[in-house]
Formats: sequence, structure tokens, C-alpha cells
Amino acid sequence: MNLLIVNADELDDNGTVTLAGRRARHVIDVLHGKRGQTLKVGVLNGPRGTGTIEEAGKTQVTIRCRLGAETPVIPRADLLLALPRPKVMKRMWAPLASMGIGHLYLTNAEKVERNYFDTHWLDPAHYEPLLIEGLEQAGDTRLPDVTVIKRLKPFLEDELDSAFPRGSRLIAHPGEGTPWGRLLASDKERLMIAVGPEGGWTDFELRMFERAGFKRIRLGTRTLRTDTACIALLAIVQAVKGVEK
Amino acid sequence: MNLLIVNADELDDNGTVTLAGRRARHVIDVLHGKRGQTLKVGVLNGPRGTGTIEEAGKTQVTIRCRLGAETPVIPRADLLLALPRPKVMKRMWAPLASMGIGHLYLTNAEKVERNYFDTHWLDPAHYEPLLIEGLEQAGDTRLPDVTVIKRLKPFLEDELDSAFPRGSRLIAHPGEGTPWGRLLASDKERLMIAVGPEGGWTDFELRMFERAGFKRIRLGTRTLRTDTACIALLAIVQAVKGVEK
Repeated sequence: MNLLIVNADELDDNGTVTLAGRRARHVIDVLHGKRGQTLKVGVLNGPRGTGTIEEAGKTQVTIRCRLGAETPVIPRADLLLALPRPKVMKRMWAPLASMGIGHLYLTNAEKVERNYFDTHWLDPAHYEPLLIEGLEQAGDTRLPDVTVIKRLKPFLEDELDSAFPRGSRLIAHPGEGTPWGRLLASDKERLMIAVGPEGGWTDFELRMFERAGFKRIRLGTRTLRTDTACIALLAIVQAVKGVEK
Repeated sequence: MNLLIVNADELDDNGTVTLAGRRARHVIDVLHGKRGQTLKVGVLNGPRGTGTIEEAGKTQVTIRCRLGAETPVIPRADLLLALPRPKVMKRMWAPLASMGIGHLYLTNAEKVERNYFDTHWLDPAHYEPLLIEGLEQAGDTRLPDVTVIKRLKPFLEDELDSAFPRGSRLIAHPGEGTPWGRLLASDKERLMIAVGPEGGWTDFELRMFERAGFKRIRLGTRTLRTDTACIALLAIVQAVKGVEK
């Protein structure tokens, strides 16, 4: 945990928060928090700052937070991901949040099995703690928005323009396509990146994406597993920002 | 499995191979292989080509391989990684191979626990199948070399120059450092990238790396878990190659 994240409604008027449970245990057992010690704190979807431990008991800690004025910017990329099987989805939540995503859309596709949508890993009560774990790791406070799309076609045709009005729409697909770097190097806009299921998008789906303005990109000659591909794509988006600086 | 990988000594003089076990089951059960059907094949550390199924039984398949002349180039990056804990190491083998690595050095460091080296996940009999799984996914045949380093200091001082004589030596560390992209954009050489343990390199280790010619780089402002960071770094290396084309 590189950033202790609290909810705005946990703070009292003096910016003091008393924690129990997982976060308190981490401060007490892992960070060996003592009165007077400081640590990095952030408010979920809010600013970051420094917390000073006012009291550290056996199961509870009280922390006084001094927060900055600015909330971290929303990460540049949104991800439109064909829902992977539950076991893979479970292990992707934290790394995706750590890489930084504005909005995660999890969609059905022809090669996505319907029963994948029954998993409890699509329940916010189960995935939000994993997203927060990723934010704590990365030191960010921006919780990605998450939308589950049961039918891809009406989403692309009727909802995408309001969900993602401005920016580049890109679709990752093995084979042809513009190499990544070149496309991104001239692009400071927001990005929506579509990543297919293990079996790939069908030709029908590829045409649908094309009609919706998605440009084909490829990530080198290597075919990657969904989870690896998503991290790789998000890493490149950020590295290119680094180049532009 | 996007590429069926065989060992050179499994092929007879006509380039025919008879498989049983995991690979046969994959061809029979997943690819529904029938006589006459073709699939992509590769020889471990050798060329790739096309295989034609000559016989598909219940547990065995015989495949005639027509191989190209060229072996894929060795991936550009070597990775010098502080050994992560066994559970993490286990899940990293396949993704690392899928991203492409020339030589993987797994090293001790002050913040690496000694007992991590006792894991069977450092035994080639256990990790090679996972590396090959990564190659099958990515469509590559180059098995990464793997070296376990029990003492980092003598390795950096006495062995590194012969192990990695030419190319850029880079060390990933949060905080200061040149942003990635800029450093790589002008660099077509081989790269060795050092990635620290979860707790980071110590100042003593950082100075040791500096004396050995490693330049500090940083991967944006986000602190990533080891496995995520490695994939992100390797993705950027490849993307930058894409930009240069």
C-alpha cells in the first residue's frame, strides 16, 4: 500500500479519520505506525496529502489528514474489454486500476460465454475493494467507472457517442493495423481502446467497430493473453505521454 | 496455443513428429485436428512453419512440418529481476515469455527473503513448461535463458561485463530518473533492465547499479507491482521499436 485511501465521508470536520479493519491493520502491522508518524493519504476520487497518526491502538488508528487542493486527473484511456472468464477477470481488477483507466466497459461478444456474466466478480461489492487495492498500489485516487454491456451492437450504435464523445477510438486486433506508437505519438486526446476475447473479435464485430469509428491497431507480432495485453496497451499509452513532455 | 512448439529431436528426417500428452490433447480436443488440417508449428529455439496433420488418433497425433529457414531473433531486452515471492514468480513465467525476453536474471537483493530461493519454481523442470506456454501464446520459439544470481554484488562487479557486454543498462526505480520513452526512442541496442523487489532497491544497491553503468529510469508516477511493472516495461520496449520503423 503506497497510499492510504479513505472515503470523504469518513473524515470529520478537522480532516481526522478513525480507521478499523483492513486499513488499520495495515498501518499497525505492516507500517508499524506510531503516534506522530506520517504517511501518504488520499480521498477516494479526491485530493492526496499527508496523514499524521494521532493515535495507534491495537485495532484502530486515528489519522489527521492534510490534503492538497487538486484531485488527480482522470487517466487518459478508457478500456472496452470483452468480458474474460471469471478467474481472469478477478485477477485483472487490481492491475487495471494500478495502470490507470478512466472508464472500464465490460462487454459481451460472440466469443464470450454468456455465463461469464453470472460471476460475483461483476458485483461492485466484490470488485471495488480490488480496484482500491490497485489505487493504493499506484498512489492514485481516481476509481475507474465500470459499466457492464450485455449487448455490444446497441451500445456501439446508440450509446457510444454520448459515453465517449471526443477522442480516438482504437481496437486492438492481431494481424493488420497501424503500429501503436505511431498512432499515439501525435495524440493527446482521450483514448478508448477495445480489446477482444481470447478467441478474438469476429469479422462481424470488427465491421461494427469500424462503422463506429474504431481504428485497428496492433501490438507487435506477438499475440498476448487478455490480461497481459491490457497492461501492455495501458503502459504504452502512458509511455507515449512521457515522450511528449 | 497459437503456435505448436516441438523439440528438434522430436522430428524425424522427413520433418514428421508424433505427439502424445498435453500437445496431442490440445490438437485433438481444442483444435479438433483432423487429417489434412494445417496448423502453425515451431521448433524450440528454431524456425517456424506449417504443420499438416497426417494422423489424428484419440491420444496421439502425427504432424508433418514444413519449416522456414529463419529462427526468430532474440528479443531485444534482458531482465534483471529481484526474485519475487514464489507465488508471484510462478504466475510471471508465462507472461514474461509471451512478452519476449532474451535472458532473465533472477537475483537476490537486500529486500528479497532468502527462502524465496528454495521454491521449486526456480527448477527448470517446473518453469520451462510455463515459459513454453508463453511462447505458444505469443507465437515465438526463443526460450529465454534463465540465470539465478545468489549474490548481486559479485555478479555486477565481475560477471556482468561478459554476460551483457554491449547495450544499455537501465534500472527502474520510482522517483527521479529519465522518463522511459525518451531514453528508448534513440536506442536500437540491446537493453538490460533491472527491476527491484516490492520494497525497492536499497541506496547501497542503487549505487552499486550506478557504478555498473545502469541509468535510472522511471515509469510514470505510478508505483506498480513487480509483475505489472515487468509487462509494462517490456511492452514499452517493443512499442518504441514500432515507432522507429
